[in-house]
Amino acid sequence: MPHPLFTPEIREMLVENDEDGLRTLCETLHPATIAEALDDDDIGVEDVWRLLGTTDLRTQASLFEYLPMSRQVELAEGPARPQVARLIGKMSHDDRVDLLRRLPTRVKESLLRLVDEADRKDIATLVSYEENSVGALMTTDYAWVPPSLTAAEAIDQLRQQAPDKETIYCVYVLGEPTRRPDGGVSPRKLLGVVSLQDLILAPRHALIRNLMEEEIVSLRVDDTRSDAAETLARYDFIAMPVVDANDALVGIITHDDVLDVIQQEATEDLQRQAAVSPIAGSYLEARFGNVWYNRAKWLTLLFVLQTGTVYVMDRYEDKLAVAALVSCLPLVLSVGGNAGSQAATLVVRALALEEIDVLDWLRVLGRELLMGGALAALLGLLGLIRTWIATPSDMVGHDSEVLTRLTYVLGIAVALICLWGTLLGSMLPLFFRRLGFDPALISSPAIATLSDVSGIIIYANVAALFFVQ
Amino acid sequence: MPHPLFTPEIREMLVENDEDGLRTLCETLHPATIAEALDDDDIGVEDVWRLLGTTDLRTQASLFEYLPMSRQVELAEGPARPQVARLIGKMSHDDRVDLLRRLPTRVKESLLRLVDEADRKDIATLVSYEENSVGALMTTDYAWVPPSLTAAEAIDQLRQQAPDKETIYCVYVLGEPTRRPDGGVSPRKLLGVVSLQDLILAPRHALIRNLMEEEIVSLRVDDTRSDAAETLARYDFIAMPVVDANDALVGIITHDDVLDVIQQEATEDLQRQAAVSPIAGSYLEARFGNVWYNRAKWLTLLFVLQTGTVYVMDRYEDKLAVAALVSCLPLVLSVGGNAGSQAATLVVRALALEEIDVLDWLRVLGRELLMGGALAALLGLLGLIRTWIATPSDMVGHDSEVLTRLTYVLGIAVALICLWGTLLGSMLPLFFRRLGFDPALISSPAIATLSDVSGIIIYANVAALFFVQ
Repeated sequence: MPHPLFTPEIREMLVENDEDGLRTLCETLHPATIAEALDDDDIGVEDVWRLLGTTDLRTQASLFEYLPMSRQVELAEGPARPQVARLIGKMSHDDRVDLLRRLPTRVKESLLRLVDEADRKDIATLVSYEENSVGALMTTDYAWVPPSLTAAEAIDQLRQQAPDKETIYCVYVLGEPTRRPDGGVSPRKLLGVVSLQDLILAPRHALIRNLMEEEIVSLRVDDTRSDAAETLARYDFIAMPVVDANDALVGIITHDDVLDVIQQEATEDLQRQAAVSPIAGSYLEARFGNVWYNRAKWLTLLFVLQTGTVYVMDRYEDKLAVAALVSCLPLVLSVGGNAGSQAATLVVRALALEEIDVLDWLRVLGRELLMGGALAALLGLLGLIRTWIATPSDMVGHDSEVLTRLTYVLGIAVALICLWGTLLGSMLPLFFRRLGFDPALISSPAIATLSDVSGIIIYANVAALFFVQ
Repeated sequence: MPHPLFTPEIREMLVENDEDGLRTLCETLHPATIAEALDDDDIGVEDVWRLLGTTDLRTQASLFEYLPMSRQVELAEGPARPQVARLIGKMSHDDRVDLLRRLPTRVKESLLRLVDEADRKDIATLVSYEENSVGALMTTDYAWVPPSLTAAEAIDQLRQQAPDKETIYCVYVLGEPTRRPDGGVSPRKLLGVVSLQDLILAPRHALIRNLMEEEIVSLRVDDTRSDAAETLARYDFIAMPVVDANDALVGIITHDDVLDVIQQEATEDLQRQAAVSPIAGSYLEARFGNVWYNRAKWLTLLFVLQTGTVYVMDRYEDKLAVAALVSCLPLVLSVGGNAGSQAATLVVRALALEEIDVLDWLRVLGRELLMGGALAALLGLLGLIRTWIATPSDMVGHDSEVLTRLTYVLGIAVALICLWGTLLGSMLPLFFRRLGFDPALISSPAIATLSDVSGIIIYANVAALFFVQ
């Protein structure tokens, strides 16, 4: 969304070609604010380049990083290749890889030809990691020092490194590079971590090797993004080191990357819960075909599962021959789906947050049996009084005994289906996890479908007890 | 969950009363790791105190902060009041308020009597903010300097402040306190922000007033937690200043607090989507009565709404007199609920992430009309072929013309209900937001319920077109 204050101001400056005004704006405001202000349909690719052109390359790069990905791609695909290549040279190492991943191969290759060899190598390494891994999320522009320096020397070294580093608040202590049998050089081993705070507090001549923390909490380059998010959130770190199989430092993950991962995973969990496969991109920007596919495949699967209700209805039809029983069918079935969705969501989320484990299944079962029972008691009561509140019209004129039977059937069936839905919803995610599947595949609609099929059987059998054919 | 490696080690040390071992462990491992290792049923309150007792007060406090809230409350409610009061004196200002909020009034008061006057005042201020506000989330232990210092003097001052501050990486520049008309002293105005990185990079004699960033992105003390999370996530800050109505600095919000808010809000959104009111505490620890109430109230509301289906069934019963039509009813209705849940979830999440706004309703409508149409085409086709795959048993023996009619009814009704559910799911959240309600109240079960009521009408009317009574 455009910025209420700065979007009109920038538009005006662009129209008046007020370069000084634009430069001042870029240099005083936070790049995120400028990027937000540029998110306007009336500000074209040309205009963004003109604005960027007023300021130095470093400011340009940080501003560019805050633009929405679709805008970045639009700019990169345009004719200004050399400018884009210069920006890529200055961008955060993780952000530029994100951008390059999204460009058509032809554009990417022509850009990479214009980039420094060192940057090209770095990009090639980061691109090689799997999309969902820590390797693809990390950045390689970390600050480091050797263990032999003193605190004062280390601070001096950080002064020189600072402008190019993602953060200098976490400083990594690295050993000497070792020569591999094949003649190449292995990356440096991670020996310890020291925070800038510790460096400032330490005596000037204290040695880094004595200051550094050696019990390091680190990530492996092939860990998943979720592992990274979970670990960083638990320890409240600003950044975490990422090491390869030989404990050599290959990158770092920073707190802001983790924030994005957590937001994105929450969105994916919500989508899965509603039986939508995770969709890439924001709601209005996601590709139509992709969204259609991610919705259609689940609707199809649910439809096929739900055909189970037709068979069951066929089989139990004669037990539901009283018209009023059929009238109440959607009401009675809905209870199982609703109670089941609740239970499934709570259990799936508790599994995702590692509050519970498959091994806790007995505790979960106990809790949901009680909970299901307590909910069933309430809803059964509602089912019982349902017929007093409003008698189905085709019951009017029936004798009061039929009405009484219907009342009992509703009360008992609703209570049983509520309990059954709750158990289904709480146990299926644990069962899925046990089998090695993602428990988040148990969506609310899936629970509703399964509970519909079994609900009809319960309802019909309860009905048969009271309405003997 | 207990820690696989350190839990057994700690248990053994406790049994052997190995104080040195426990002390070494506390001093080498990250407090989060120790806290995790203590999360074991066999390690009692007494044991935790014994372990804490081996180390200095500052380590004790940071370890205590990482314990799960339920454990903290258990320790605080125990007999060791003076020890707890000493810990409270050293804890993060936001964490200790969180703890005190959760203690029974009697315990809280007896603890506060044992705490320093300055700490008591600070606690009283923080407790006074609304639970959901930035004020309740922030901490008051920020690092600050006056604008008249040089960079070198500021670093010296930070050296002294560091041990008591939540972070010294963001340093706030504050003005002189002003005297209020009533004789009291107003808090100091926030003049600027300077990062430790900038201080290190600056020449030793540069003045803070020239180094500081004056275009400050800040939060107001009465902003919501979501505002804080959204702003910090957008700007990638480590910390953000919180000011009162007079622009005086009253606290800071740090990146790790925001991470917790984002996790918690995601959990609440998931719960709301499944028609559960947000539940406080983890799955196994949440109070049974509270969970029951937060589930029961929605089940009750949905049950009452769903009784609409009974009326509708009553009215349209004669149009559904063919047995096979009734057999297919749950199948046909489920399509609307499933397609509607998908649309509602996508739109509610897009609203929460501010990807769309109420004003975008026409674009959303256009997109979901197309999407609903494309999904309806697929499902309608599935509905059509449904009867070929498996003919409902009570259709066997019927003439082929009846079968053909049923085929058409299913295909058309499924397509229409799919489209209708999609529109309902996408438009209702926008309508709720427009009316000033939380769009997240549109849960998947609520959409399923509403789509059931209207779905019966659609199905019955399509049926009536083909099966004239």
